[in-house]
Amino acid sequence: MEKSIFYHAGCPVCVSAEQDILNLIPTGQVEVVHLGTDKTRVTEAEKAGVKSVPALVTPNGNVLHINFGASISDLK
Amino acid sequence: MEKSIFYHAGCPVCVSAEQDILNLIPTGQVEVVHLGTDKTRVTEAEKAGVKSVPALVTPNGNVLHINFGASISDLK
Repeated sequence: MEKSIFYHAGCPVCVSAEQDILNLIPTGQVEVVHLGTDKTRVTEAEKAGVKSVPALVTPNGNVLHINFGASISDLK
Repeated sequence: MEKSIFYHAGCPVCVSAEQDILNLIPTGQVEVVHLGTDKTRVTEAEKAGVKSVPALVTPNGNVLHINFGASISDLK
Protein backbone atom coordinates (compact mmCIF):
# COMPACT_ATOMS: atom_id res chain seq x y z
CA MET A 1 0.00 0.00 0.00
CA GLU A 2 1.20 3.49 -0.80
CA LYS A 3 1.63 5.89 2.08
CA SER A 4 -0.81 8.55 3.16
CA ILE A 5 0.58 12.04 3.54
CA PHE A 6 -0.32 14.16 6.56
CA TYR A 7 0.17 17.89 5.87
CA HIS A 8 0.33 20.26 8.79
CA ALA A 9 1.78 23.61 9.72
CA GLY A 10 2.86 23.20 13.30
CA CYS A 11 -0.13 24.98 14.82
CA PRO A 12 -1.59 23.50 18.03
CA VAL A 13 -4.59 22.03 16.18
CA CYS A 14 -2.21 20.38 13.71
CA VAL A 15 0.10 18.94 16.34
CA SER A 16 -2.79 17.45 18.26
CA ALA A 17 -4.29 15.94 15.13
CA GLU A 18 -0.88 14.65 14.07
CA GLN A 19 -0.50 12.72 17.29
CA ASP A 20 -3.96 11.22 16.89
CA ILE A 21 -3.37 10.23 13.28
CA LEU A 22 0.01 8.71 14.04
CA ASN A 23 -1.56 6.70 16.84
CA LEU A 24 -4.32 5.38 14.59
CA ILE A 25 -2.48 4.56 11.39
CA PRO A 26 0.13 1.80 11.50
CA THR A 27 3.73 2.98 11.65
CA GLY A 28 5.33 3.54 8.27
CA GLN A 29 2.05 4.09 6.43
CA VAL A 30 1.98 7.85 6.77
CA GLU A 31 4.45 10.57 5.82
CA VAL A 32 4.29 13.81 7.80
CA VAL A 33 4.98 17.08 5.98
CA HIS A 34 5.30 20.41 7.84
CA LEU A 35 4.23 23.05 5.31
CA GLY A 36 5.27 25.86 7.61
CA THR A 37 8.93 24.84 7.40
CA ASP A 38 8.87 23.05 4.03
CA LYS A 39 7.23 25.60 1.79
CA THR A 40 8.50 23.87 -1.33
CA ARG A 41 5.73 21.32 -0.82
CA VAL A 42 2.82 23.78 -0.53
CA THR A 43 2.21 23.58 -4.28
CA GLU A 44 2.20 19.78 -4.16
CA ALA A 45 -0.33 19.86 -1.32
CA GLU A 46 -2.51 22.33 -3.17
CA LYS A 47 -2.45 20.18 -6.31
CA ALA A 48 -3.53 17.21 -4.21
CA GLY A 49 -6.60 19.22 -3.19
CA VAL A 50 -5.54 20.34 0.27
CA LYS A 51 -7.51 23.47 1.20
CA SER A 52 -6.50 23.76 4.84
CA VAL A 53 -4.27 22.03 7.35
CA PRO A 54 -4.17 19.65 9.06
CA ALA A 55 -5.16 17.37 6.20
CA LEU A 56 -4.55 13.76 5.31
CA VAL A 57 -4.19 12.72 1.69
CA THR A 58 -4.98 9.02 1.41
CA PRO A 59 -3.22 6.56 -0.92
CA ASN A 60 -6.18 6.71 -3.31
CA GLY A 61 -5.91 10.50 -3.55
CA ASN A 62 -8.79 11.53 -1.33
CA VAL A 63 -8.24 14.51 0.95
CA LEU A 64 -9.52 14.38 4.51
CA HIS A 65 -9.55 17.87 6.02
CA ILE A 66 -9.29 17.38 9.76
CA ASN A 67 -10.54 20.09 12.10
CA PHE A 68 -9.18 23.44 10.97
CA GLY A 69 -5.78 24.88 11.68
CA ALA A 70 -4.86 27.19 8.84
CA SER A 71 -5.88 27.88 5.28
CA ILE A 72 -3.42 26.71 2.64
CA SER A 73 -3.31 30.25 1.26
CA ASP A 74 -1.85 31.46 4.55
CA LEU A 75 1.13 29.14 4.10
CA LYS A 76 2.38 30.50 0.79
CA MET B 1 -6.14 -0.30 22.78
CA GLU B 2 -9.70 0.93 22.99
CA LYS B 3 -11.55 1.44 19.76
CA SER B 4 -12.06 4.71 17.97
CA ILE B 5 -15.63 5.60 17.05
CA PHE B 6 -16.46 6.99 13.63
CA TYR B 7 -19.76 8.90 13.64
CA HIS B 8 -21.45 9.61 10.35
CA ALA B 9 -24.89 10.26 8.94
CA GLY B 10 -24.90 8.48 5.62
CA CYS B 11 -24.35 11.57 3.51
CA PRO B 12 -21.99 11.26 0.53
CA VAL B 13 -19.17 13.13 2.32
CA CYS B 14 -19.55 10.76 5.29
CA VAL B 15 -19.56 7.60 3.20
CA SER B 16 -16.46 8.64 1.32
CA ALA B 17 -14.64 9.53 4.55
CA GLU B 18 -15.79 6.28 6.14
CA GLN B 19 -14.19 4.23 3.38
CA ASP B 20 -10.95 6.16 3.74
CA ILE B 21 -10.88 5.81 7.51
CA LEU B 22 -11.66 2.11 7.38
CA ASN B 23 -8.85 1.64 4.86
CA LEU B 24 -6.36 3.47 7.05
CA ILE B 25 -7.14 2.15 10.51
CA PRO B 26 -6.54 -1.55 11.17
CA THR B 27 -9.62 -3.75 11.14
CA GLY B 28 -11.38 -4.01 14.48
CA GLN B 29 -9.99 -0.77 15.88
CA VAL B 30 -12.88 1.43 14.83
CA GLU B 31 -16.60 1.27 15.48
CA VAL B 32 -18.87 2.90 12.91
CA VAL B 33 -22.04 4.63 14.13
CA HIS B 34 -24.69 5.96 11.72
CA LEU B 35 -26.35 8.82 13.59
CA GLY B 36 -29.00 9.21 10.92
CA THR B 37 -30.44 5.77 11.68
CA ASP B 38 -29.30 5.42 15.30
CA LYS B 39 -30.54 8.63 16.84
CA THR B 40 -30.22 7.22 20.35
CA ARG B 41 -26.49 7.81 20.06
CA VAL B 42 -26.63 11.49 19.02
CA THR B 43 -26.43 12.57 22.68
CA GLU B 44 -23.43 10.34 23.28
CA ALA B 45 -21.69 11.84 20.24
CA GLU B 46 -22.49 15.36 21.37
CA LYS B 47 -21.11 14.65 24.86
CA ALA B 48 -17.92 13.36 23.26
CA GLY B 49 -17.54 16.76 21.60
CA VAL B 50 -18.75 15.92 18.11
CA LYS B 51 -19.94 19.13 16.42
CA SER B 52 -20.44 17.80 12.91
CA VAL B 53 -20.18 14.56 10.99
CA PRO B 54 -18.22 12.76 9.78
CA ALA B 55 -16.09 12.74 12.93
CA LEU B 56 -13.70 10.30 14.52
CA VAL B 57 -13.44 10.09 18.30
CA THR B 58 -10.06 8.62 19.20
CA PRO B 59 -9.42 6.23 22.11
CA ASN B 60 -7.97 9.11 24.14
CA GLY B 61 -11.13 11.17 23.68
CA ASN B 62 -9.97 13.62 21.03
CA VAL B 63 -12.43 14.50 18.29
CA LEU B 64 -11.23 14.74 14.71
CA HIS B 65 -13.81 16.52 12.58
CA ILE B 66 -13.25 15.32 9.04
CA ASN B 67 -14.40 17.47 6.12
CA PHE B 68 -17.97 18.55 6.72
CA GLY B 69 -21.11 16.57 6.08
CA ALA B 70 -23.74 17.76 8.50
CA SER B 71 -24.02 19.65 11.75
CA ILE B 72 -24.82 17.51 14.78
CA SER B 73 -27.81 19.74 15.48
CA ASP B 74 -29.36 18.69 12.18
CA LEU B 75 -29.39 15.07 13.33
CA LYS B 76 -31.52 15.51 16.44
